[in-house]
Amino acid sequence: MLKVGIIGAGRIGKVHAQSICNFVPNAQVKAIADPFMNADTQAWAKSLGIPVVTKDYQEILKDDEITAVLICSSTDTHSKISIEAIEAGKHVFCEKPIDHDVAKIEAVRKALEGKKLKYQVGFNRRFDHNFEAVREAVKAGKIGKPEIIKITSRDPEPPGIDYVKVSGGIFLDMTIHDFDMVRYLVDSDVEEVYVQSAVLVNPEIGEAGDVDTAIISLKMANGALAVIDNCRRSAYGYDQRAEVFGSLGMAACENDTPSTVKIAGSEGVSGEKPLYFFLDRYMQAYAKEITAFVDAVVNDTPVPCTQDDGLKAVLIGLAAKKSAEEHRPVKLSEIAQ
Amino acid sequence: MLKVGIIGAGRIGKVHAQSICNFVPNAQVKAIADPFMNADTQAWAKSLGIPVVTKDYQEILKDDEITAVLICSSTDTHSKISIEAIEAGKHVFCEKPIDHDVAKIEAVRKALEGKKLKYQVGFNRRFDHNFEAVREAVKAGKIGKPEIIKITSRDPEPPGIDYVKVSGGIFLDMTIHDFDMVRYLVDSDVEEVYVQSAVLVNPEIGEAGDVDTAIISLKMANGALAVIDNCRRSAYGYDQRAEVFGSLGMAACENDTPSTVKIAGSEGVSGEKPLYFFLDRYMQAYAKEITAFVDAVVNDTPVPCTQDDGLKAVLIGLAAKKSAEEHRPVKLSEIAQ
Amino acid sequence: MLKVGIIGAGRIGKVHAQSICNFVPNAQVKAIADPFMNADTQAWAKSLGIPVVTKDYQEILKDDEITAVLICSSTDTHSKISIEAIEAGKHVFCEKPIDHDVAKIEAVRKALEGKKLKYQVGFNRRFDHNFEAVREAVKAGKIGKPEIIKITSRDPEPPGIDYVKVSGGIFLDMTIHDFDMVRYLVDSDVEEVYVQSAVLVNPEIGEAGDVDTAIISLKMANGALAVIDNCRRSAYGYDQRAEVFGSLGMAACENDTPSTVKIAGSEGVSGEKPLYFFLDRYMQAYAKEITAFVDAVVNDTPVPCTQDDGLKAVLIGLAAKKSAEEHRPVKLSEIAQ
Amino acid sequence: MLKVGIIGAGRIGKVHAQSICNFVPNAQVKAIADPFMNADTQAWAKSLGIPVVTKDYQEILKDDEITAVLICSSTDTHSKISIEAIEAGKHVFCEKPIDHDVAKIEAVRKALEGKKLKYQVGFNRRFDHNFEAVREAVKAGKIGKPEIIKITSRDPEPPGIDYVKVSGGIFLDMTIHDFDMVRYLVDSDVEEVYVQSAVLVNPEIGEAGDVDTAIISLKMANGALAVIDNCRRSAYGYDQRAEVFGSLGMAACENDTPSTVKIAGSEGVSGEKPLYFFLDRYMQAYAKEITAFVDAVVNDTPVPCTQDDGLKAVLIGLAAKKSAEEHRPVKLSEIAQ
Repeated sequence: MLKVGIIGAGRIGKVHAQSICNFVPNAQVKAIADPFMNADTQAWAKSLGIPVVTKDYQEILKDDEITAVLICSSTDTHSKISIEAIEAGKHVFCEKPIDHDVAKIEAVRKALEGKKLKYQVGFNRRFDHNFEAVREAVKAGKIGKPEIIKITSRDPEPPGIDYVKVSGGIFLDMTIHDFDMVRYLVDSDVEEVYVQSAVLVNPEIGEAGDVDTAIISLKMANGALAVIDNCRRSAYGYDQRAEVFGSLGMAACENDTPSTVKIAGSEGVSGEKPLYFFLDRYMQAYAKEITAFVDAVVNDTPVPCTQDDGLKAVLIGLAAKKSAEEHRPVKLSEIAQ
Repeated sequence: MLKVGIIGAGRIGKVHAQSICNFVPNAQVKAIADPFMNADTQAWAKSLGIPVVTKDYQEILKDDEITAVLICSSTDTHSKISIEAIEAGKHVFCEKPIDHDVAKIEAVRKALEGKKLKYQVGFNRRFDHNFEAVREAVKAGKIGKPEIIKITSRDPEPPGIDYVKVSGGIFLDMTIHDFDMVRYLVDSDVEEVYVQSAVLVNPEIGEAGDVDTAIISLKMANGALAVIDNCRRSAYGYDQRAEVFGSLGMAACENDTPSTVKIAGSEGVSGEKPLYFFLDRYMQAYAKEITAFVDAVVNDTPVPCTQDDGLKAVLIGLAAKKSAEEHRPVKLSEIAQ
Repeated sequence: MLKVGIIGAGRIGKVHAQSICNFVPNAQVKAIADPFMNADTQAWAKSLGIPVVTKDYQEILKDDEITAVLICSSTDTHSKISIEAIEAGKHVFCEKPIDHDVAKIEAVRKALEGKKLKYQVGFNRRFDHNFEAVREAVKAGKIGKPEIIKITSRDPEPPGIDYVKVSGGIFLDMTIHDFDMVRYLVDSDVEEVYVQSAVLVNPEIGEAGDVDTAIISLKMANGALAVIDNCRRSAYGYDQRAEVFGSLGMAACENDTPSTVKIAGSEGVSGEKPLYFFLDRYMQAYAKEITAFVDAVVNDTPVPCTQDDGLKAVLIGLAAKKSAEEHRPVKLSEIAQ
Repeated sequence: MLKVGIIGAGRIGKVHAQSICNFVPNAQVKAIADPFMNADTQAWAKSLGIPVVTKDYQEILKDDEITAVLICSSTDTHSKISIEAIEAGKHVFCEKPIDHDVAKIEAVRKALEGKKLKYQVGFNRRFDHNFEAVREAVKAGKIGKPEIIKITSRDPEPPGIDYVKVSGGIFLDMTIHDFDMVRYLVDSDVEEVYVQSAVLVNPEIGEAGDVDTAIISLKMANGALAVIDNCRRSAYGYDQRAEVFGSLGMAACENDTPSTVKIAGSEGVSGEKPLYFFLDRYMQAYAKEITAFVDAVVNDTPVPCTQDDGLKAVLIGLAAKKSAEEHRPVKLSEIAQ
C-alpha cells in the first residue's frame, strides 16, 4: 500500500485525493497540506479518511511513511517543492507546468540526477480515452506516417483578469497542454513555432498583455506539420478535439457529450453540447493519471509523462510567446540556448 | 450516515457495495452476507472497509444499526427476504425481478402495507444518462404526444444453458428491463402484448423451452404503440437503444462507445463498437440508482422505481410468455386476473 | 435508342420523363398520354422535346416505334393498361401497385406468359443508395445470417381524406413499399403478419375506415423476424431508415439531409432534418430505376423488380389488412388461397 | 432562351455542357470549340444536341446568336480569351484562375470597364450545399462574430509531375479554392499569410520546386484568424471540410458520402469514405454555378463570384508562395503593390 501526501488542497488536489480513494486500491492518502487549510477542507479530508491534515507541507516531507507526494500547490512553488521533495527522497507527481522559467525546470532535473525517484508531470489529457485512442491508432500504424496534426482546444469561459495577469500568458497557461498533446500524439518533438494571435474575446485580456485567440503552426522533428487553434471562450462549452492525418489515413476524435440523445423536430435535429467543464471531460483521465503514477512507483516502471516532457512543453510555450511578440517563426533551438 | 446491509455478494452485490463506498457520501456498507462467502470476497470486503462479513443474512436483519438492506441474492429468494426485511423494519432495495410469481410479489405489497418503509426495485437502466435524456425530452413535451416507442436490446453473448433453464425465460429475464423501460420512457402502462419469437442463436436454448430472438409489439394505455426487439447475442456488443416518436418529433439515443475516435482509411471510416459489457455501459447508472435509493430513505421522498413498477414489468413478461405460447395478442387484464 | 411512351402525365410520369431525358442516354420519350392533358403539360413536354402529346394512350400502344411503355396512370387502371400494353407487344414499366385485387395481378401474369416481354414494377426505393448499400452488405455476408430486420417509414404529412378513401388503406398504399423493402433487403419472402395499428394523427382517417399509425411484425421464410413502423405524419420530414441485424453484426442506414452542417451553440448542437419530400429523397433512385428498366429491355436481362414482386407486396398488404381487422396473426398462405 | 458557347471541351467544359442540357431550362449550348476536337467529342456533343462543334473558338465569338461564353480552356489562355470575348460583347464565365499574373487579371478588369457585361469566375465550391449552409449560418448570425475559420482540403491523389510543373504551384493551383472559400465563408478579405509547407507525399513534387503538404495561417480584415490545411494525397478520398467558430458558437460541415450505411461487427462500426472524386462531390455545385451565371445574365443581376474575387484569390496565392519561399508572414499589401 503506497502512502501518498498531497501538497495543495485546491480544486486539483481534491480531485487527486478523491481519485486515489475511489479508484487506486494500492495507494492511500496519508496526509494533505495547504497553507489556507480551513474547516471545510478538514471536514472533506475527514470524510475521505485522510488521517493527517496540516497547513505545513514540511510535515509531509518529513513523514517517513509517505513515499510519494503530489504537488498541487500554486505554479510558482512547483519547482521549489519538487526539489525539496526529491531531496527528502519522495517520488513526485507535479502538476503542470513545473515552472515558466527554464532554469528552474533544469534545477529539478539536476536534483533528480542519480536518484532512483519517479517524477511525473501532470499532463492529464494524455490519459483521456479519446486522445489515447488517437495515439493508439497512430502507434499501430493505422494512418501510416503522420503528416498533419490538428488540435482544437477552446475553453468554455475566459479566466478572470487577475488570473490572466499571473498566468504566464495563454501559451504557457492554456496552450501548454496542446503543445504536450501534439508531441504525445505522434511521439515527436517540435522544432519551430509560428503564432497568429488576437484579442477577440475580452479587451481587458489585451490590456493585460495577453491574447485570447490564437492559431499556432508547428513544424515537427519527424517532418509533420501541426496546427493548434485556441480560444479562451466557447459558447458551446469545452472543445477538445484532435486529428492526425497520415500517408494511409486519418484518426480523429470528437468531444464527449452528457448523452447520445438526438431530438428531431420541425426545426432540425439537435444533440447535446460537449461536456462543458474540464473536470467533467477529464475526470476519468485524472483517475488514470494518478493510477499510472502509483503503478510507476510501485512497480518501478517508467512514468508516462516525464520531467523532460514538462520541460519541452514549456520550451514550445516560450517559443510561441516569442513568435507572437516578434511576429515571425521561432525555432525551438533559439529558446533552448 | 445511513448504515446499509447487502444480502448477496455476487457480481451485482459487489457493484452496489463499490458504488456506495465511492459515490454515496451519506451511506456506509456496514455488513455483507452471502451463503457462499469465501476468502476472496472477505478480502475484497475488507479492502472496502466493510466491518461485518457473514454467511447468514439474518445477522443483517437483526442489526439495529442497519436501516436499509440491498437484496442482491438469487431471484428465487427475493420475495422471501423482502418480506423478512420489511418485517424487521428495514428499507429495501431489491434487485429485479421481485419474483416471477405474481402472488409472491403481491405478498411483498401486503407486507409493505401500513409500514413507512421504502421499497425500490432495481431497474438500473432508468438511471442511464441516455435513457434519462430521452425521457426528459418526452416529459418536457419536445416530441409532443408519444405515438411510437422503439427499444432495441441485445446482449453481447447468450447466457449458459444452465442459467437459461432457471431464468424464467427471455421475457422475464431479459426483456423485463425493456418492459420497464417502455413504461418509464412515456409514463404509461402496457395494455396488450404480441410476441414473435425464434431460436436463431443457439438450438439448445430452444431445447430448454426458451427463445433467443424476439420482436414484441405492445399497446400502451396512452394509445401509443411500442415495439421491442431482443437478441441474446450481438456480435458488436451490448446494444441498448431507444426511440420515442410523437406528434412533434422524435427523441432517440445511441449506444455509448469507449471513445469517439474515427479512423478513415482506404477501406472506409471506422469507429468503436458499443461498450461490450453491461457493467461498462451501466456503471454510472448503478451508482445513480443506489444514490437515489439512499436519498429516498434519508429524505423520506418517494423511490424512483416502486414495488408496483416491479409487479407491472413481471405482468407484461407473463403476458409476453403467454403470447409466445398461444401465438396471439394477450391483454394484460388476462394476466392480472 | 429505345423509344418509350409514358401513360399518365401526373407527378410521377413527369419525374420519369425528366429522368429519361437527363440521365438515360439510350432511351427517348417519344410520346406521353394523359386524359387530362392541358396546355401546361403540353408546354412542359415540348420543353423536354417529347414529340407526341396526346389524351389517348391507345395512340402510344399503336405506335410501332415505341417498344416500351411506362404506366403512370391512376392505380385502378394499372392492370388493365398493363394487359393491353403486353398484348400490343410492349415492354412495361408499371407503377406500384399493379392492383389491390390479386385476381387482376394474376391476369397480368397470364398475359405475360409465353411472351418475351419485360415487366418491371415501380418499387423505387430498391434503387435508393442507402437501402442498396444495406442490401449489398447483407448479400456480401458482412452481417452473417439475417435475424432481425427493422424498417422505419414515416411520411411528412398525411394525404387528404379524399385520397385516403380511395387509397386501399395504409397497408396497400404506404406500407406496401416497406413490404417490398423487407423482402428486398434479405432476399426472402414473408410468411406471417401481425399488425398493431391506431388512429393517432387525424380522426378523419379513422372515420374513413383506415389507420394512420402502425407497427407490423413479420415472420420471414428464412426464419428472420421483421418489424415495420409507419406513421402518416412526421414533424421532422420523411423518415426512411432500415436496419438488418444478423449473426455477425448489423447494417443500418440513416436518412439523407440537405447538408452535413452542424451548428453548435449554447443550446446544443443542431443539424438538418431529413430531406422532407419523397421526390427529394428518391430523385436519384427514380433515375436509377428507369435506367435499370431501359437496360433490361435493351440488353434482354432480367428486370430488377418483377410482376411477382408486385404480387407479393400486395399479398402481404392484404394479410396486414386482415390482421388489423381480425386482431390476430395472419399467414400469407391464408391470402394466397 | 440564352444561347451559350463553350470554349474548351475538356473534362470541365463537358461538365458544364451536360449541366446546361440537364438542369438549366433557360439556356442552350449552341456551340463548343476545342483545338483538339476529335470524333469522340463530336459524338458526345451530338448526343447532347449541340449544333456547332468546332476547333476554332473564334467561330463562337463571331456568332451573334451566342450571348454568353464559358471559358474552359487551359489556364494560360483564360485572360486572353476573356478579353477577346468581352470585346466581342459576350458575357463571360471563366474557369479559375483568370491567370497567375496579376497584370493579366487587371487587363481583364480594364476590358470590362464601362461594359454592361457579366463576368463570373468559376469557384465551384461556393455552390456546394455544405459550404453554402455554413455560410448561411454565419450570415444569419448563428455563430455571432467569426473568430476562427478552419478549412481542410485534401485531394485523393497527387497530379502527375508534368501537370505539377505547369500548375503554378500548390497555392495557385489547389489552395486557391480554399483562399476563395475562406473569403466566402465570412465575407471578409485576407490581410496576411503565413505558410508552413513540406514535401511529404512525393519527392518529385519537391524536385519540381513545389510542395505537397501545407498549413496556411491567415489574418482576415475582420480580425478573425484562419487556417487551411492541404495535402495532395488522402488515402480515404477527397476531404473537403470547413468550420467557422465565433462568439456565439460554431458552424461546421463534414464530407458527403456515397451512402449513410454503417456496418457494426466484432471489429467496430464502419461507414463509407467521403466521395472520392471531385466531380462526385461537386456535381450539383457545378450545376448550381452555371445556373447562377445564366440567371445573372438573363435577369441582369450581379454574378455571385466576380473578377475581383478571382483577383483576390490569386493575390493570396502569390502571398502564400512568397511566404513559403521567404519563410515569413507576408502581407497582401506587399503583393498588391
